Amino acid sequence: MTAQAVLTSQLKPHQEKPNFIIKVPKGTRDLSPQQMVVREKILEKIIGCFKRHGARGLDTPAFELTETLTEKYEDTFGLMYDLKDQGGELLSLRYDLTVPFARYLAMNKLKKMKRYQVGKVWRRESPALVQGRYREFCQCDFDIAGEFDPMIPDAECLKIMCEILSGLQLGDFLIKVNDRRIVDGIFAVCGVPEDRFRTICSSMDKLDKMSWEDVRHEMVAEKGLAPEVADGIGEYAQCHGGISLIEELSKDPRLSQSQLALQGLGDLKLLFEYLTLFGIAEKISFDLSLARGLDYYTGVIYEAVLLQSPGQAGKEALNVGSVAAGGRYDGLVAQFDPKGHRVPCVGLSIGVERIFCLVEQKMKASGEKVRTTETQVFVATPQQNFLRERLKLIAELWDAGIKAEMLYKNNPKLLTQLHYCEKTDIPLMVIIGEQEQREGVIKLRSVASREEVIINRESLVAEIQKRLS
Amino acid sequence: MTAQAVLTSQLKPHQEKPNFIIKVPKGTRDLSPQQMVVREKILEKIIGCFKRHGARGLDTPAFELTETLTEKYEDTFGLMYDLKDQGGELLSLRYDLTVPFARYLAMNKLKKMKRYQVGKVWRRESPALVQGRYREFCQCDFDIAGEFDPMIPDAECLKIMCEILSGLQLGDFLIKVNDRRIVDGIFAVCGVPEDRFRTICSSMDKLDKMSWEDVRHEMVAEKGLAPEVADGIGEYAQCHGGISLIEELSKDPRLSQSQLALQGLGDLKLLFEYLTLFGIAEKISFDLSLARGLDYYTGVIYEAVLLQSPGQAGKEALNVGSVAAGGRYDGLVAQFDPKGHRVPCVGLSIGVERIFCLVEQKMKASGEKVRTTETQVFVATPQQNFLRERLKLIAELWDAGIKAEMLYKNNPKLLTQLHYCEKTDIPLMVIIGEQEQREGVIKLRSVASREEVIINRESLVAEIQKRLS
Repeated sequence: MTAQAVLTSQLKPHQEKPNFIIKVPKGTRDLSPQQMVVREKILEKIIGCFKRHGARGLDTPAFELTETLTEKYEDTFGLMYDLKDQGGELLSLRYDLTVPFARYLAMNKLKKMKRYQVGKVWRRESPALVQGRYREFCQCDFDIAGEFDPMIPDAECLKIMCEILSGLQLGDFLIKVNDRRIVDGIFAVCGVPEDRFRTICSSMDKLDKMSWEDVRHEMVAEKGLAPEVADGIGEYAQCHGGISLIEELSKDPRLSQSQLALQGLGDLKLLFEYLTLFGIAEKISFDLSLARGLDYYTGVIYEAVLLQSPGQAGKEALNVGSVAAGGRYDGLVAQFDPKGHRVPCVGLSIGVERIFCLVEQKMKASGEKVRTTETQVFVATPQQNFLRERLKLIAELWDAGIKAEMLYKNNPKLLTQLHYCEKTDIPLMVIIGEQEQREGVIKLRSVASREEVIINRESLVAEIQKRLS
Repeated sequence: MTAQAVLTSQLKPHQEKPNFIIKVPKGTRDLSPQQMVVREKILEKIIGCFKRHGARGLDTPAFELTETLTEKYEDTFGLMYDLKDQGGELLSLRYDLTVPFARYLAMNKLKKMKRYQVGKVWRRESPALVQGRYREFCQCDFDIAGEFDPMIPDAECLKIMCEILSGLQLGDFLIKVNDRRIVDGIFAVCGVPEDRFRTICSSMDKLDKMSWEDVRHEMVAEKGLAPEVADGIGEYAQCHGGISLIEELSKDPRLSQSQLALQGLGDLKLLFEYLTLFGIAEKISFDLSLARGLDYYTGVIYEAVLLQSPGQAGKEALNVGSVAAGGRYDGLVAQFDPKGHRVPCVGLSIGVERIFCLVEQKMKASGEKVRTTETQVFVATPQQNFLRERLKLIAELWDAGIKAEMLYKNNPKLLTQLHYCEKTDIPLMVIIGEQEQREGVIKLRSVASREEVIINRESLVAEIQKRLS
C-alpha cells in the first residue's frame, strides 16, 4: 500500500488548487481484499477459541472520556490520540481494550464476567514504523473478571494462548511468565525507592529489545538509580527457568525478605501445577526479565514470543517478538468504582498485526492463492441482446441464496466472460443463448473441466444446488 | 446502559480526589453480550448478501487526513470529529465509508472494484439523541466502481437493499428513488441560482422529517429563495409514482427544458425496466422529494424506509425512518486523482443501528431468549478435591475442539454447578467423583432431561461429539 500521488485538488474549481498527497495517515493502512481474507481467517480461529472457553462478546466505543484513560498507561508504548476540543466532552481514542472493559464492569456494577472483544486500538508510537507495528491496530482480548480461587482463571488464559498459537501454526513459541509482585519484591530488596518502581519497571520491560547493559545504563544514567542497585536487579533479571527456579527463589535469603515476592512465588508454583495438568508446562518459562509496560498489572504477567523455526541449521532459536500478552490486574475496576469495590481480573491480548504479517509472508512464500470472492455461479451469454434474460436468471439464483455474478455489460464477449470466471475461480457457468431460449433449456458449464451439460430451464436452481452441495 | 456513578478517583491516593462521572461519551454506547449476539446475527445476514453478489472485503483506517474528508459533506448530518493537533498530520475520524473507498480507489489506481465494508463511522450530530441515532454508529456498505453499461449496477444495488430488508424480516418497506440530475433540473427550471443548488438540496432532504410548509419556510426565510421559486420546487417535490410519472415528467414542458433532468429521467426509465426483471419494481417508488444530504451524489439516489406493519387497523402505513440509502457518485474518485481520472461508482449503505433497535424491540416483545455463550459441555464434580481431575478433563475437551466450561473454584457445590448450567443453557454435563474415578468412568448428564448415563473415561470425547452432532 505504498501508492501515493500528488493531487491537484479539484474540489473547488474556482479556488486556487492546492497540491496535496493522497495517502493514509502515518502508521495506518488499508487492508486489501486479499489481506481481509487472511485477516478474517485469523480472527475466526481466535474468536473460535474464545468461544470454546465460554466467553461472551462485548463492544465499547472507539473513544472514551479522556479522564477514563489517563494514568492507566506508562509512556512505554507511545501516546494517546486525543480528540480536538470541539465544545463538549474531552475524548481520546482507546489505547487498549482492557481499560474500557474495566470501565464497563464498574459502570454496570458487574462482579463477574468472562468476555472477549475484538477491535482496533490506537497508539501514537514515537519510533519509526517497524514490521508489524502500527499506530492503528487490531487487538483480540479475552478476560475473566471475578473473585475466584487462585490461579485457575490465570491458568486458563495461558491455555488459551497456547491453543491459539498452536492453532494458527506459526511455528514454535514460548510463553514467558513472571509476577508483578516478584518484580516489585526484587526492586524492594535491591533498594529501589518505592516511587520509582513503575519507571524502573518500564526500563526493565525493554529487556527483550535491549541488552542488560543498555537497560542498566538507562536505569542509572537516565533514571538516576545507584549502580549497585541496578546491578542487584540485574542479577535477578537475567534468571529464567521452571519450577526449580521458583523453589530456589523461594529460599533466596534476600528475595524471601519480601512478603510480596513470596506471595508471587507461591502463586506461580500453583500456576505451574495447573499448567502441567493442562499439558502445556513445557511451553512456559518463568522469566524474571519480564516486566510488562502497562501500569495496571498487579500479579501474574505473561508474554508469548515466537521462536524462529528450527531446521535453519546452526541458528539458535530466535525471539521474533511478542505476539500475545496479558496478566492479572486486580485493582483497575476499583479505580472506576465510586466505593472502590475491587473486581479482580486476569486476561490476555492477541496482537493480530504481527501474526497477520507472518501468515501473509508464509502464504506469499508458498505461493498459495487466495480467493477474495465466494461467487459460485456466473451467468453468461454468447449472444447479443440477452441482458434481460441474464437479469431474470441471476435474480432467480440470488433469490435461491446462490452466490452469482454477471458482467455489467449489455453485450459482453463470451471470451471476456470465460476469462472473468477463470481469473476469479468461479466454479460454475450458466449460459443462455438463442438456441437455449428456444428450447427452454440452459447450458451449465464447469469452468475447471470445461464440461458442459444441458438442463431444463425450470430445474436450474435445483441442479446448481445439487452440484454445489 | 444508563448506569452512572460519581467516582471518587483513587488513582493517586496522595492527590486531591476529584469527583467524576463514569460514563461513555455522549452519543456512544457499549454493546452488551446480549446485544452483540443480535448485532452479529444482523451483520451476518447483511454480509452474506454482499458476498452473494460477489463483493470483496476492504478495511480502511478509522481516521483519515482531514483534507481527505473536507468539502465532501453538507452539514446536514452533523460535524466531523477532528483529532487534536499533537504534532503531526491533521486527522479526522471518518464520517462514512464512501469517501475512504473513493480515496482507496484513487490511491491504488483501481478502475473497477466491487467491495463491501463494515465499520464504525462518527458524526457529531447536533440534535439530542433520538431513538437509534448515535454519534458512533456502524455502517455496512456495498459499492460497485467502474465504467459499465447504464443502470445495471444501480439496479443490483436496489436488488441488494430488497434482499437484505426482506431477509431481516423487518416488515414492509419501500425504496424511494430519484436522480440528482432531476433534482438539479427542477432547481434550474424553477430559477434557483446554481451556487445555491446544494444548500437548497439539503433543505429538500428534510422533507421526510418536516412538512413542505416548513421546508419552504427554510428555503425562503433562512436561505433567501424567492417565494415563487420555492413554490415552483414544491409543485414537483410533492410528486411520487412509478413509470407513468417518469413518462409524464419527460413530457413536462418546463422540466424537459433541462437536458440534465431528461438524462436522469431516461436512466430511471431503464432502471425501472431492470427492477421489473428483478421482480422488485413494486417495492420502488419514484419520489421527487428525495434529495439525499450528501454532496457527492451525481445520478440515481435512493433511500429505503420501513412502513409500519399493517394489521394495526385504521392506521395508515407510516414512515418509521430510513434504514438504508445510497446512490451514484461518478465524480468523487476523480477528486482524489492527480489527473482527475473518473471512476464512476454506485453504492448503498445499511444503517445497522436502526435495524438493530427494531430487532431488539421485536425480540423483547416476543420474550425470545438469547444465549450469549456457545458452551456445549460443563465439567462438574459432586465432591471435594477434584479440581485437578476437572482441569485434566476440561483440557481434553478443549483440545478436541469442544466448547467447555467449569467453575473457577477448588470445591464448588454441585447445586451451584447445576444452576450455572441451567442459567446459561449448557446442554451437557460431565460429572466426575470418587466412584467414577475408581471405576474409570464418567457420568454424562443431559441438563434439560436430567437423564444420566455412565460411559468409559476413554470414550468421553467421542461420546460427546456423537451427542453434539
